[in-house]
Amino acid sequence: MKNKYGIDIWGDDNFFIEDGVVKVDYSCSPSLISIVKDIRKQGFKGPLLLRFPHITKKQIKTLFNAFNASMKEYDYKGKFNAVFPLKVNQLPNFIHPLVSAGKKYGYGLEAGSKAELIIAMTYNNLGSPITVNGFKDKEMIHLCFIAKSMGHDITVIIEGLNELEMIVEVLKETNMEAPNVGLRVRLHSGGSGVWAKSGGIDSKFGLTSTEILEAFELMQDNNLEDLLTMIHFHIGSAMNTIKPLKKALRESGHIYAELKNLGAKKLSSINIGGGLSVEYSAYEQSRFYSLNEFASDVVFTLKEIARQKGVEEPNIFTESGRFISAASTVLIAPVLELFSAEYELSHLKLKGVNPPLIQELHDLFRDMTKKKAYEFMHDSIDHLESLLTLFDLGYIDLQDRSNAEILTHQIIKKAISLLQVDDYEELRKFDKNIQEKYLLNFSLFQSLPDYWGINQEFPIMPITHLDKKPTRSASLWDITCDSDGEIPFDMQKPLYLHDVNLNKEDYFLGFFNVGAYQDTLGMKHNLFSHPTEVNVVFKDDEVILEKLLESQKVIDILDDIDYDTEEIQSILSKRLPLETYEILKKYLNDNSYLKTIWSYYDDE
Amino acid sequence: MKNKYGIDIWGDDNFFIEDGVVKVDYSCSPSLISIVKDIRKQGFKGPLLLRFPHITKKQIKTLFNAFNASMKEYDYKGKFNAVFPLKVNQLPNFIHPLVSAGKKYGYGLEAGSKAELIIAMTYNNLGSPITVNGFKDKEMIHLCFIAKSMGHDITVIIEGLNELEMIVEVLKETNMEAPNVGLRVRLHSGGSGVWAKSGGIDSKFGLTSTEILEAFELMQDNNLEDLLTMIHFHIGSAMNTIKPLKKALRESGHIYAELKNLGAKKLSSINIGGGLSVEYSAYEQSRFYSLNEFASDVVFTLKEIARQKGVEEPNIFTESGRFISAASTVLIAPVLELFSAEYELSHLKLKGVNPPLIQELHDLFRDMTKKKAYEFMHDSIDHLESLLTLFDLGYIDLQDRSNAEILTHQIIKKAISLLQVDDYEELRKFDKNIQEKYLLNFSLFQSLPDYWGINQEFPIMPITHLDKKPTRSASLWDITCDSDGEIPFDMQKPLYLHDVNLNKEDYFLGFFNVGAYQDTLGMKHNLFSHPTEVNVVFKDDEVILEKLLESQKVIDILDDIDYDTEEIQSILSKRLPLETYEILKKYLNDNSYLKTIWSYYDDE
Repeated sequence: MKNKYGIDIWGDDNFFIEDGVVKVDYSCSPSLISIVKDIRKQGFKGPLLLRFPHITKKQIKTLFNAFNASMKEYDYKGKFNAVFPLKVNQLPNFIHPLVSAGKKYGYGLEAGSKAELIIAMTYNNLGSPITVNGFKDKEMIHLCFIAKSMGHDITVIIEGLNELEMIVEVLKETNMEAPNVGLRVRLHSGGSGVWAKSGGIDSKFGLTSTEILEAFELMQDNNLEDLLTMIHFHIGSAMNTIKPLKKALRESGHIYAELKNLGAKKLSSINIGGGLSVEYSAYEQSRFYSLNEFASDVVFTLKEIARQKGVEEPNIFTESGRFISAASTVLIAPVLELFSAEYELSHLKLKGVNPPLIQELHDLFRDMTKKKAYEFMHDSIDHLESLLTLFDLGYIDLQDRSNAEILTHQIIKKAISLLQVDDYEELRKFDKNIQEKYLLNFSLFQSLPDYWGINQEFPIMPITHLDKKPTRSASLWDITCDSDGEIPFDMQKPLYLHDVNLNKEDYFLGFFNVGAYQDTLGMKHNLFSHPTEVNVVFKDDEVILEKLLESQKVIDILDDIDYDTEEIQSILSKRLPLETYEILKKYLNDNSYLKTIWSYYDDE
Repeated sequence: MKNKYGIDIWGDDNFFIEDGVVKVDYSCSPSLISIVKDIRKQGFKGPLLLRFPHITKKQIKTLFNAFNASMKEYDYKGKFNAVFPLKVNQLPNFIHPLVSAGKKYGYGLEAGSKAELIIAMTYNNLGSPITVNGFKDKEMIHLCFIAKSMGHDITVIIEGLNELEMIVEVLKETNMEAPNVGLRVRLHSGGSGVWAKSGGIDSKFGLTSTEILEAFELMQDNNLEDLLTMIHFHIGSAMNTIKPLKKALRESGHIYAELKNLGAKKLSSINIGGGLSVEYSAYEQSRFYSLNEFASDVVFTLKEIARQKGVEEPNIFTESGRFISAASTVLIAPVLELFSAEYELSHLKLKGVNPPLIQELHDLFRDMTKKKAYEFMHDSIDHLESLLTLFDLGYIDLQDRSNAEILTHQIIKKAISLLQVDDYEELRKFDKNIQEKYLLNFSLFQSLPDYWGINQEFPIMPITHLDKKPTRSASLWDITCDSDGEIPFDMQKPLYLHDVNLNKEDYFLGFFNVGAYQDTLGMKHNLFSHPTEVNVVFKDDEVILEKLLESQKVIDILDDIDYDTEEIQSILSKRLPLETYEILKKYLNDNSYLKTIWSYYDDE
C-alpha cells in the first residue's frame, strides 16, 4: 500500500504525486525534488523554504471570486474588500508578490504595529485599502495621517476611546486630513476553534456598547462623525465551524444598523476580521465549511439585517491571512541520519557464559514461532527491564547490557515479520518499540514555532520515494540541543517514512502550509536562524528561482544579537596562525546549519 | 492585608519589599522604580530588561561552594567543574559579566551550535572548560580542533558514532591536536519535571550501550582511547525532585566504571548535564530539594559506585544554565491602561420607558441588600444574557444594551461591597465578573515566549504600591494584535493588582526570573523586537547603568527581515513633502513600542 500522506485532504490541488515524487500542480509541473536539487547545486544546503507566489495569487483570486459570486447571487448592493494582515507574514519575499498579485482586486494590507504600518505605507497599491488594528500611540495615529496624505485609503480601527481622543488631537495639531475611522466592537458571541478567545465579551480587543455610544458622541461633538466608515470585529482565528460567525454577524449587523440610525451617514462597511481556516490535517478533515458557504453566509446574513433594520447593505471587509498565505510556502528539511542501525545482530557479542536472563532472551529469539510471537515479545521487554536494573546495581556489565538491548529489538523485529504486520493499524500496536528516529537538518523552533507553542499540526511528507511503501513509524528530531525539538510519533496521527540508506541516497521531508506565522514567529534557539529561502516562479513554462536569500552567516547572527563582531574577529585572529584563521573565517561566513555529515559523502 | 507576591518563595533574597517598593538586596539597595525612572529620564520608554550581574555572580559562587563543600564533607577525590550552556542565554550583556565572574572558579561555557562555539572560543577564559553538545557536522568538529589549538580545554560530546568517525578524519586530514572526547550516554532512567523527555531510552540524545562499546572500540582501533575523558548524560531540565537523578547517577556511574575497566585510562569525569531547577512559583514551592542536597546526593552516589567498582572517583561536571541565569534578569513593563471605567454609572442613560428587563435590572440595583446580594447578582447576570440575545434579534437598541451592561456591572460591584468581600478567597468567587484588564507596553511573544509555548509561570508583581492593598483581580494584555498575548486571571494562582489612576501616576509590573531562555527565544510577533536592556552594576555603593542597548528602531527591524530600507526611504520621501518626511524619519528611528498614550501626559 502506498501512502498519499493526506495530500487529498490538505493539498487543495496545489501539489500532486506522480512517478513517486511530489510535483507542483502548475505550469510545467516541476517536482519539488528537482527544485531542491537545483538550489543545492548552487551550494545552498540545510533547510530550504520554497515560496510559490502563484499559490498566493490563486488564494486571493479564490477569495474575491467566492464573495463576488455570493454577492451577485443575492443581488447584494455592498462591495467586497479584503486586506492581508501583515502580522501573518511580513517578509518581503512573500509580501512583494502578494501586493502585485492583489493589485487588480484592490487587495490591501492590514498593519498592527508601526513597523507593519511602514511596510503598508510604502508598498500597498494606492487605491487598495489599508486598515490599522491593535493598540496605538499618538505617533502611530500620526503615521496614519501621513499615510492618508500620501493618498492611501486608510482606516484606523479604534480599540479604545483614548485612540479617538488622540485622533482629535492630531487633527487639531497638524491640520492634516484625518484617516477614516473604524470601531472595533466587542461582541458577546465568541468564536470557535483554538483561537476562540480573541472573540467574546472578555476579549482583549474592542469597545463595549457603552464605549461605542461614547465614541460616536465624541465624534459628533467634534463634527467628525463622517470619519466613521467601518465596524470591525474578529471572533477568532481559524474557525472550524461557521456557526459562531453567523451569531457574530447578526450582533455586529445590528450595531452597524443602530449606528446608521443614530446618524453615522458615512458608515458603510463591516469588517469581519480573519478566521477563515486552513486544512492542516493529513488524517481527517478538520474544517467543516467551504469558502463558498462562508461567503454565502456572510452575504446572506448581512442582507437580512439590513432589510430588517431598513439600512443600506454594508460593504464587506475581510482580513484573513492564514487562508491567503499558508499554502504558498513549503519547508524542505534534509534527513541527516536514521537512528536504527544501533541494534543490528552483527553487534551481538555473547559471552561463553551469559547471565541467565540474557540466555533466555537468546532462546526466545531462537525459538520464536508465529504462534508465540506476541508472548515472546512481551517477555523480552520484561527481561530487558530487569536486565537494565541489574546493570544499575552492578550485577551485569556493559557488554551484557548491549546484548540485552540487541536481542530485545531483534525479537520485536522478528515478531513483526512473523506476524506479517503489513497494514498500518496492526503496526500501530508495536509503535513504541519499533520507532525510527529521523534527524533533520532544521530547527523546529525556528521553522515550526506553532508546533512547539500551540501544538499546531502541519502536513508532512517525503518529497520522493512515494512509489514505495513507507514502513517505519517515524519520530522527527531537529538539530537543536533541546529535547522539545522533536515531533514524536503519534499513534493517533501516525507518520510512516521510508527505510532509506542515506549513504546512497538523499531523503527530504516537506512540511506544507507553513506560510502563515511560521516565518515571523521563528525563534533563534541555539542561534539557528531563518532557513535559506527562494521564490519559485514560472515563466513560459520554465521554473525560475528568484530572490534567493541564504540563511544567515554565523558572523551575522552574532552581529544580530549585538556582539561586537570586529572584536570577535580580532581576538580570534590574534590567537590563531594566519592559515588557521583563514579557515575559521570561512566558517564564520557559512550559515549555521549542518553541512558535511558523512565522511564518504561530501555534504549532508 | 498586603500582598508580598510570593517574594519569600521565589525571591532567594535577591529582592525585598520596603516602603512599598521592591528593592535590590545588594549594596546600596536601590529600588527598582528608581532605576526605571533613571532610564526613562534618558528617553528610553517601553519595556525594560534589567540585568543584575551580581546575581549571576552569586549563583556561580553558590553552585561551586555547594559542590566543593559536599566534596570536602565526603572526602571526595574528584574535582568539581561547571560550564554555562550558551543556549540558555547567548546575549553579550549577559555573557560578558558571566565570563568575568566565572574566571576565579574556572567556570566555562557549553556550546550547542557553531555560532555558540564561536562565542565560547572567543570569550571563554583560557583554562576554563568548554564542552560541545548537540549534533555536529565535520565543520563544527574542525572548529573544535581549532579551539583546542588556541589552548582551550575543550571536550566534544559525541552524540553519534559518525561524529567520532569525523574526529578521526579531521585528525588525519589536519594533523592538529584533537580535542577531548566525551560520550553522551542514553540512560534508561528518565527525568522528572516538564522537560523529562530529554532523558530516557527514547531520548533524542545519546548513545546506547551497544554504541558506547562500538565507540570505544573505534577509538582503540585508532589509538585514540586516551582522548576519552568524559561520560555525559542529561535527564531533563528543571527537575523538581531529585529521585530520578539518583537513578541516573547510578546508571551512568556504572557505565563510567565499566569503561574504566575496559581500558579508558584517561576517563576522569562524569558530566551530569543540567537540570537544577529554579523556583518560579509565587504561590507554593515547586522545587523539592535544596542545592546542598542536590550536591550531596551527586557526590555521595558517585563515591559509592567508585568504591563498589574499585575505580577512582570521577570529576563532576554540571551544565546548569537556568540556575545560573534566571534570577539575574527582571523585565519591567509599564501599564498603559486599565480597562474598567467602561461601566461607570455616569454613562447610564435610561430612557423614559425602558424594556422590562432593564427596568428590573435597575430595581435590582436600587433594592439590593446584603442579604439579597448573591441572589440579585446572579439574577442580573441572567438578565444581561437575555438582553444581549434581544439585541441580536433586533428587539432592543444599542442604548438599551449599554444600560444593561452598566447596570449589571454596577450590581456586581455593589454586591461585593455589601458582602464586604475583603479576603482573597471570597474575592475569587466573583473572579470572572470583576476582572480588570491591564494593558502593558510589552510583547508576551518577545519577552515571555515560554509562557506562550509551555505555559511557564513567572513571578509577577508591581514594583511600587506595595504598601497598599491590591484589590483588582488582574488579566494582563500585551500590545500585540494577538489574543494569545494575554496572561489571563487564574483562579488557582490569582494575581491581584492595584486600582491606579494612570493619568496621575505610573504603574510598572516586574516579571522576575526571566534570565533563562526568554532573551533568546523571543519572537518578533507584529515586529515587536527585543526590549531596551541595561546592566545594573554597583560601584562603591553607587548604581551604574552599563551597556544600555535600546530596543531596535523601526527601520532596523525592517532591515533585519530583509527589506530594502534604502528603497523604503526613497519611496516614502518621494511621496511626501520634505517637512512631513522629516517627521516620518523620526518615527522610523524610534523603537517600535508604544510611546505617547495619554493626551494630557507626555508619554506612556
